[in-house]
Amino acid sequence: MNLDSLYSELTLKTNAKLVLLVLDGVGDLATREQGYLTPLEAAVTPNLDALSKDSAQGRMIPVAPGITPGSGPGHVALFGYDPIEYQVGRGVIEALGLGLELKAGDVAARANFCTLDAKGIVTDRRAGRIDTPVCEELCALLAQKVKKIGATEVIIKPGKGHRFVVVFRGAGLEGPLTDADPHREGLPVPDAKPVNPKSAKAKKAAKLVAEFYKAALPVIAQKKPANGFLLRGIAHQPAIPGFQERYGLRPACIAVYPMYKGLAQLVGMTKLEGAQTIGEQFERYLAEYDNYDYFFIHYKYTDMHGEDGNFAAKRRAIEELDAALPILLRKRPDVLVITGDHSTPCAVKGHSWHPQPVLLHSPISGSDKLERFTETGANSGSLGVFEAKYLIRLMQANARMFDKFGA
Amino acid sequence: MNLDSLYSELTLKTNAKLVLLVLDGVGDLATREQGYLTPLEAAVTPNLDALSKDSAQGRMIPVAPGITPGSGPGHVALFGYDPIEYQVGRGVIEALGLGLELKAGDVAARANFCTLDAKGIVTDRRAGRIDTPVCEELCALLAQKVKKIGATEVIIKPGKGHRFVVVFRGAGLEGPLTDADPHREGLPVPDAKPVNPKSAKAKKAAKLVAEFYKAALPVIAQKKPANGFLLRGIAHQPAIPGFQERYGLRPACIAVYPMYKGLAQLVGMTKLEGAQTIGEQFERYLAEYDNYDYFFIHYKYTDMHGEDGNFAAKRRAIEELDAALPILLRKRPDVLVITGDHSTPCAVKGHSWHPQPVLLHSPISGSDKLERFTETGANSGSLGVFEAKYLIRLMQANARMFDKFGA
Repeated sequence: MNLDSLYSELTLKTNAKLVLLVLDGVGDLATREQGYLTPLEAAVTPNLDALSKDSAQGRMIPVAPGITPGSGPGHVALFGYDPIEYQVGRGVIEALGLGLELKAGDVAARANFCTLDAKGIVTDRRAGRIDTPVCEELCALLAQKVKKIGATEVIIKPGKGHRFVVVFRGAGLEGPLTDADPHREGLPVPDAKPVNPKSAKAKKAAKLVAEFYKAALPVIAQKKPANGFLLRGIAHQPAIPGFQERYGLRPACIAVYPMYKGLAQLVGMTKLEGAQTIGEQFERYLAEYDNYDYFFIHYKYTDMHGEDGNFAAKRRAIEELDAALPILLRKRPDVLVITGDHSTPCAVKGHSWHPQPVLLHSPISGSDKLERFTETGANSGSLGVFEAKYLIRLMQANARMFDKFGA
Repeated sequence: MNLDSLYSELTLKTNAKLVLLVLDGVGDLATREQGYLTPLEAAVTPNLDALSKDSAQGRMIPVAPGITPGSGPGHVALFGYDPIEYQVGRGVIEALGLGLELKAGDVAARANFCTLDAKGIVTDRRAGRIDTPVCEELCALLAQKVKKIGATEVIIKPGKGHRFVVVFRGAGLEGPLTDADPHREGLPVPDAKPVNPKSAKAKKAAKLVAEFYKAALPVIAQKKPANGFLLRGIAHQPAIPGFQERYGLRPACIAVYPMYKGLAQLVGMTKLEGAQTIGEQFERYLAEYDNYDYFFIHYKYTDMHGEDGNFAAKRRAIEELDAALPILLRKRPDVLVITGDHSTPCAVKGHSWHPQPVLLHSPISGSDKLERFTETGANSGSLGVFEAKYLIRLMQANARMFDKFGA
């Protein structure tokens, strides 16, 4: 029997409120250079400390041992989906990051403006790294001239510098396609081809991309230096089983950055917009408390400073989060989880595979008698080391949402 | 999607050096009789202690909960292969242990000289436990008289006492076969039959075994007491995906005992011969540092003394290893792992299923702030308790050999 079916069978209807607070990339390493402290250990966090006393802790493997996830797989797992089964293509992630609202079946591609010579050879893959306003102008021109290809809608949205995104919205399309990008200069732009040559939908998508090139290239042919473009990570938005149907919870997302809103939307969460600071995000949670059962609250700055290897700033980001925490706790949910989507250790200056610490607080979480929420403490917590995709099941269990299995 | 395929897709080419130092059977139990100390805890290990401070620790399940592995599955898992999927038959292990270099497809059998009566009934399964020189003489005679059966080469190698090994080297053979051994006295020697009756290759191997009996029995028919022989564990050397191709690492083995060299060779490692002491093994590692990317260094004595239940000797073996460790650390690899292939607790006097402790040291392993490398300490390490087959994936991750998964 499929484990998801079992969970589904055992699910009870309750009025429980569940909160997932993601401190992006919060997990870190205690290195000699950092005085054997992690940012969580170095930070002054009276509110997290108080919560820790009445919580269970553990560590989570984001995907599989040794695998470093991007934000996509990291969050897909936190939302309870197998991140290997439900892969979200790079084009889709990029589109979500630019705030585009995708629908299941939309095919999205990351795009670069590039420079082509008279023979169509790529001479600069980034078109001299044109400024964002130039990119915006070119995208506006393309969007105006190429609105549809047959019955398929084309959506073009500029990003930073030479980057933009193209989305094809129509029936019967599917990715992934190979890149329309030679990945180095001195070669022509190759055709995008179905990765799975047997997929009729992917063939249709490949034909569409070819027609898009035919329609779009003449529009910018006289521009300098951006007279061409490359498409990469061409993928469709996967049909992921809806969060509400799967868990019996009305979900809401309170995030600041577009990508996380997009990932939440991917599984059918309602985006609650407008909050800019973590304090405002917590206030918004209070205001919407009665309208939803599951709140995904995303805090970006732990990851951002980890990426920069800035230990002091990451520590401060944790302290700022801690200072705002009493707002959230004004309406204490039935289950509160504080964790990351992965680790972003200062020593790595990037995402990593190191299991992220997780704190789970509920009336029946029990206490692991840990005075603080830290990586080292979490190692000896009652949750052990487990795969992130099971977190939501532990949250549901702590919300008494599962009936007994067997007699 | 298969997890191995995912790892393979994410693998990057680097110049990293990885070292796996196996203290065979190092894991142990803290019993009342031993003053609640394990040999690792009782030993004086200043060099391991120093390393521990800057390492991650955990415990590894060799195969599955409660399963005690032989050396074969123990090492197959450490090399990153599922030990249940890639089973190495007893005949193959025995042949490797005698230093025979097997090729994929070779069929090997453990053999006993035995005593048969005039009707072919087994009257002594060990032929009165004949001395090794007698066994060597009989094997030389058999090897001289039975060199081939049809196109298949027959290799016969004596072991200790009544034991020897027979290898059939030819095309289109396959194991496993049932034993040509009644497993008790008073019965005739049964035919070896294919375990899978549908396998044409196994049928061919069974026919070959029957013909081998027909050719070999007359050669020793007049000998006393060893006028017959039994064959057990008849299996072929499995085709295991090559280590270098699988991980993108040039592997070398520095072991003293033939079985471990054989197991390394099974996955395509180069055997670096000649070193007799652990100090010499480490010196050999230094000398070959530039020629390989992955070094498997095997230390036997922890297991040997554990098998004898000799706590003091096992402790001393650990101390001797520790004393030699500075030689290894003269060229510190990117990733160093120290662990066992399983536990061999003195209280058990044999291999066991108790998860073995593992220490992983790299610039980005982080510190678990453990002052020593011990079983109890490892219980609270950041690596948690995990299946041994994932160890190499953590080593690769620590060597930054994996690209990020998803965006």
